[in-house]
Amino acid sequence: MNTNMEKPYVVGIDIGGTNTVFGIVDARGSILCSSSIKTQAYDDVNKYADAVCENLLPLIDSVGGKDKIKGIGVGAPNGNYYNGTIEFAPNLPWKGIIRLADMIEERVQIPTALTNDANAAAIGEMTYGVARGMKDFIMITLGTGVGSGIVINGQMVYGHDGFAGELGHTIIRRGGRPCGCGRRGCLETYCSATGVARTAREFLAERTDESLLRQIPVEEITSKDVYEAAVKGDKLAKDIFDFTGEILGESLADAIAFSSPEAIVLFGGLAKSGDFLMKPLLKSLDENVLNIYKGKTRVLVSELKDSDAAVLGASALGWELKDLK
Amino acid sequence: MNTNMEKPYVVGIDIGGTNTVFGIVDARGSILCSSSIKTQAYDDVNKYADAVCENLLPLIDSVGGKDKIKGIGVGAPNGNYYNGTIEFAPNLPWKGIIRLADMIEERVQIPTALTNDANAAAIGEMTYGVARGMKDFIMITLGTGVGSGIVINGQMVYGHDGFAGELGHTIIRRGGRPCGCGRRGCLETYCSATGVARTAREFLAERTDESLLRQIPVEEITSKDVYEAAVKGDKLAKDIFDFTGEILGESLADAIAFSSPEAIVLFGGLAKSGDFLMKPLLKSLDENVLNIYKGKTRVLVSELKDSDAAVLGASALGWELKDLK
Repeated sequence: MNTNMEKPYVVGIDIGGTNTVFGIVDARGSILCSSSIKTQAYDDVNKYADAVCENLLPLIDSVGGKDKIKGIGVGAPNGNYYNGTIEFAPNLPWKGIIRLADMIEERVQIPTALTNDANAAAIGEMTYGVARGMKDFIMITLGTGVGSGIVINGQMVYGHDGFAGELGHTIIRRGGRPCGCGRRGCLETYCSATGVARTAREFLAERTDESLLRQIPVEEITSKDVYEAAVKGDKLAKDIFDFTGEILGESLADAIAFSSPEAIVLFGGLAKSGDFLMKPLLKSLDENVLNIYKGKTRVLVSELKDSDAAVLGASALGWELKDLK
Repeated sequence: MNTNMEKPYVVGIDIGGTNTVFGIVDARGSILCSSSIKTQAYDDVNKYADAVCENLLPLIDSVGGKDKIKGIGVGAPNGNYYNGTIEFAPNLPWKGIIRLADMIEERVQIPTALTNDANAAAIGEMTYGVARGMKDFIMITLGTGVGSGIVINGQMVYGHDGFAGELGHTIIRRGGRPCGCGRRGCLETYCSATGVARTAREFLAERTDESLLRQIPVEEITSKDVYEAAVKGDKLAKDIFDFTGEILGESLADAIAFSSPEAIVLFGGLAKSGDFLMKPLLKSLDENVLNIYKGKTRVLVSELKDSDAAVLGASALGWELKDLK
């Protein structure tokens, strides 16, 4: 981390489909102040960028002005680090290729970098979280989808086009569940929060045994409901986690054969399911991993607060930026 | 490549289960002279190292002596770059962990590095072959097994333990063919030379149509026989390549989701099967790859001569070495 006394802060901006959250972060990963706007309220990306800046500048002033800010980091779905662009993001209001890093940099006159949200999470984990000091790890975000950020030799893996690290879209069941990407059997159709809900609906339809989940209208079941039922000892809910953990373990075993990481860091709501997920995951990982890797890769859960992690992750990009000329 | 006029050569040593080949290589990738010994003739690895040196030193003298050599690179099965060791290689006569780089360095007094054979092939391709100038590519070696060497940000991916890049042991058919590694459905059980021969035996048993391959005793069929039958228009042989290419395409699509490489470079006997393999492979890759990657990653065939590539690849490691103190 390239901190100095003159510019002790960075800005993190997390662009989600619903909210855009921004905050000022110090070198220890404390969020000094933060604010947010509604992403969907801006059809025109220029007006969106204006609104980000209007809301961000008062925060910057409150910590001593632009001279105190080393850089701005932005995490966004379909973000491309090389170009500072958001490209064809299905859940954002702006279509095509959006040069958002430039748009913010021009308005705020602070160097700005952008990457996708899972990469930002990985950088945040490496800068402030459980992956501090690690040179080789994989971040897996278990949210609505499954994202990933891969760090090798201490560097974020962006690939030749800036879009590397889509482990959520590797095929874990060929010909399996239809995925939003148009293909079948992607990891995220099984091991995301929505994947867990799909598994619940499948299990409830296939099986006849009692379950607390039968009290919920089947289309409304969420992964949180499954977790709460499991906590109460519900067998079917626990079986859903066994199924999910087993598939995730199979997938992580293959990922290890790629980059042989020191650790895999899980992040997101599902990652907080404790032993319900972790036990079958570790069992499956151990059964499926190639012998030479056995017992070498730790599986960790992020310790960053969910509400802060996205902003922290994005902000960590800011430390790497050089001053504008 | 860190060449200089004073030390214009490197040594490449390729350790195979049958032969150990070594050669002196210049900065253009020309092998100036080479020699070989039988790997299996030495039960004692100390005597093996002695023999390597005895045979290598005359070659070194013939190009002007040790002062002309920048370094020695060794490619070996189960080679570990970090430790310079060969670890538990099933097809070599020495068991356990062998500190071979040190053993050679001590004897010859030239800095020595060691890596696994597929990594050596990748470095060779990057230094002398079709991957010159590329920063992100994946080397796939289609030989008796399937090996891989992954380059990201211009650096070889070794992983935290030195064993990264075993794509031949990612699972492409869960519960599929038994693999020598003790698991099932590994890529190499389908897409290696031996995998192609297995497919031939399966197809011949399942099908009743005529085939040139039926003239060969079924246990003796090799991938070369399948290729030669395909060249003669044999339908069953062509179907074997279709099957192989389809599976390889599926696997490469997943590999692209990991590191989004500029190119995938195929090497080894099977890679020379021309359109028989390449057509179904490219079709399958295109059908299976995630949309954002479509059409971006080139699939190339190594242009290095098979007989030279292993020595060239190993030798390329030598350019990176620093002088002994």
